[in-house]
Amino acid sequence: MISIETIRTDVDNWLKELEFKREPRSLYTPITYSLSLGGKRLRPVMCIASCALFKDDYSQAKKAALAIEMFHNFTLLHDDVMDNSQLRRGQPTVMARWNTNTAILSGDQMLIEAYKLISDVDSPSVSLILETFNQTATEVCEGQQYDMDFEKQTDVTIAQYMEMIRLKTAVLLAASIKIGALVGGANIHDTKALYDFGINIGLAFQLQDDLLDVYGDEKVFGKPIGGDIMEGKKTYLLITALEDANSTQKKELLKWIENSDAKREEKIKEVTNLYNQIGVKEKTELKIDELMNKAMRMLIAMEISAEGKRFMADFVASLIKRNH
Amino acid sequence: MISIETIRTDVDNWLKELEFKREPRSLYTPITYSLSLGGKRLRPVMCIASCALFKDDYSQAKKAALAIEMFHNFTLLHDDVMDNSQLRRGQPTVMARWNTNTAILSGDQMLIEAYKLISDVDSPSVSLILETFNQTATEVCEGQQYDMDFEKQTDVTIAQYMEMIRLKTAVLLAASIKIGALVGGANIHDTKALYDFGINIGLAFQLQDDLLDVYGDEKVFGKPIGGDIMEGKKTYLLITALEDANSTQKKELLKWIENSDAKREEKIKEVTNLYNQIGVKEKTELKIDELMNKAMRMLIAMEISAEGKRFMADFVASLIKRNH
Repeated sequence: MISIETIRTDVDNWLKELEFKREPRSLYTPITYSLSLGGKRLRPVMCIASCALFKDDYSQAKKAALAIEMFHNFTLLHDDVMDNSQLRRGQPTVMARWNTNTAILSGDQMLIEAYKLISDVDSPSVSLILETFNQTATEVCEGQQYDMDFEKQTDVTIAQYMEMIRLKTAVLLAASIKIGALVGGANIHDTKALYDFGINIGLAFQLQDDLLDVYGDEKVFGKPIGGDIMEGKKTYLLITALEDANSTQKKELLKWIENSDAKREEKIKEVTNLYNQIGVKEKTELKIDELMNKAMRMLIAMEISAEGKRFMADFVASLIKRNH
Repeated sequence: MISIETIRTDVDNWLKELEFKREPRSLYTPITYSLSLGGKRLRPVMCIASCALFKDDYSQAKKAALAIEMFHNFTLLHDDVMDNSQLRRGQPTVMARWNTNTAILSGDQMLIEAYKLISDVDSPSVSLILETFNQTATEVCEGQQYDMDFEKQTDVTIAQYMEMIRLKTAVLLAASIKIGALVGGANIHDTKALYDFGINIGLAFQLQDDLLDVYGDEKVFGKPIGGDIMEGKKTYLLITALEDANSTQKKELLKWIENSDAKREEKIKEVTNLYNQIGVKEKTELKIDELMNKAMRMLIAMEISAEGKRFMADFVASLIKRNH
C-alpha cells in the first residue's frame, strides 16, 4: 500500500494545478485563495486512500477527490457568511478579506466547479457517483440548516444532535470514501460497508472536535480553546451536560451559558468545572470509542486485503489520537 | 405545432408537482415559496418549445426545463441577497420574508436540486447537456460578478455592458433553447444556430427591460418606473447617454445620477429629459431591432420546418412587443 503522506502530497499538488485563469478575477481569485488555506485535506485523502484499496493506480479518482475538496470549501465560504466568521485556519475568511457578496458568489462558483469535476470522473460508475454526490450535497445543506435551527432551540436532544452532525459532517466523509471505492471498482457490499465506516468515523471526528474545543491543547487545536462555550453552541458536551446534570448543576450551567456579559476566562473556567463535575469528558470519550469500535468492526467484515484494512485502521487511528 | 399557452400551463403544473417534503422544513419551504412566485417561465417554456420543434412528445424535456427554472430561481435568491432586494414580483423576497442565511442556504439547495434534475434527463445527449449546463452556470456567475464590479466603475463601455448582459442574462436563455433542442434530437448545426438565436433574443430582452424601466407603463412593467435611475444603475440607456452626450449634458447627467439626496420624482424627470434630448430611447430601440433581426436571420437559416420557424418567430415577437 502507498503511504498517506504520498497521497496527501499528490492531493496538495493536484489542488495547486487547478488553475482559474478566467475573468473576472474578482470571482476567481477568492477561489484560489480559499483552496490555498490548506487544512488536512481529509476528504480527498480518504477518497484516494479508499480507491487505492482496490486499484494501484489511484489517479483515476483525482477529479472525484478534487470535486469533494472543492465542495467542502464551497460550504466553508457560505458557512462563514452565515456564522459571520472572520478567521479560518488562522487566516481571514473570504468574507473578511473581500466581502459577503464575494463569499456568496465565489462560493456558488465553487459548487459549480465541484459539479464540473464530478461530472467528468472517468469511471463506468459515473452516474452512481453523481447520484451519491447529489444526495450528499443535499444532506450537507440539511445539516447546516439543522445547525442554524438548533441555535434557537433550547431542547436539542443527543439523538437530534447526532443526526445533525451526521448530515453536516459525516456524510461528506462517508461519500468521499464511497466514491473513491466506486472509482476503484469496489463491489456493492464493500462500497456500502465503507460508507457506513465513514459515517462512524465522521461522527467520531466531530465529537473529538467538540471535545478539543474544551479540553484540547490550543497549539495543536489551532484555535483558542472555549470558543463553543463562549458562543453557547449546542455541542455533544453541552447537551450531555444538560441531560445528566442535577438540578443545581443545570441551573448553574444555564446561568453561565446564557450570560453573554461574563468575562471570557471566567465563563470558560466555570463551565469547564461543571463539565468536570458531570463527567462530560469521559462520557464523550466513551462515545468516541464506541463509534470508532463500530467503524473498526465494519472494516474487519470487509472483503478487502488484510493490508488494506490495516492501512485504513492505522490512518483513522492517527487522526483520532488524543491531543490532550 | 402546440401552442405556447399549452406549454406554459404544462410548465406551471410540473412546477406545482415538484414536492419538497423532506425535513428540515426551514430549508425546503422557502424553495416552494420561491417557485410559487410565478413569472413568465420564459426559460422553461423556451426549452420545451425548442424541443417541440424536433419532437412531438416534448415531455422528455420536462426535467431539463425544470432544472433551468430551478437554476434561475437559485440565482434570484442569491442576487436578492447581494442587492439587498426586499421585493420581487410584488412579493417579499426570501431574504425579506425569512432572512439572509435562509436565502443563501435554500438557494444553495436549489442549485443542487437543479443539478439533480439535469443529471436525470433521459437523453442520449445527457453528457453534452450537463456540459452545457455547467458552462452556462459558470457564465451566469461571471455575469453577476461583472454586474457588481461595474457598480464601482465609472467608465463602463457599451461593449463591456453587452458582454455583461450576455453572461448574466442571455446565456441561460440560449442554453434553455439549446438543451431543449438536444433533448429533441436536433443536429449540431441547428443546435448551434438555436443557441446563437437565444443569445440575440436574450440581449434584446435585457435591453427592453432597461428601456421599460424608464419608458414603460408601470402596470405592465410590474414595478415602479425609474428604479434604475434612482440606483444610478449602469444600464444600456445610461451608458449610451454618457457616451453620446455633449459636455453640458454629460455634466448635468452625472450631477443628477450622483445626487442621492434628490427627490425621486424630480431625479427621474430630469434624467429622463436628458435621455430624451440625447435620443437614448430611439438608440436603444434601434439596438433591440438590430438584435431581433439578427435572431430572425438565424432562425430563417435553420433546417427546421417553416411552421416551426413561424412558431418561434411569433412567440419571440409577442414577448418583445412594445409596452409603451
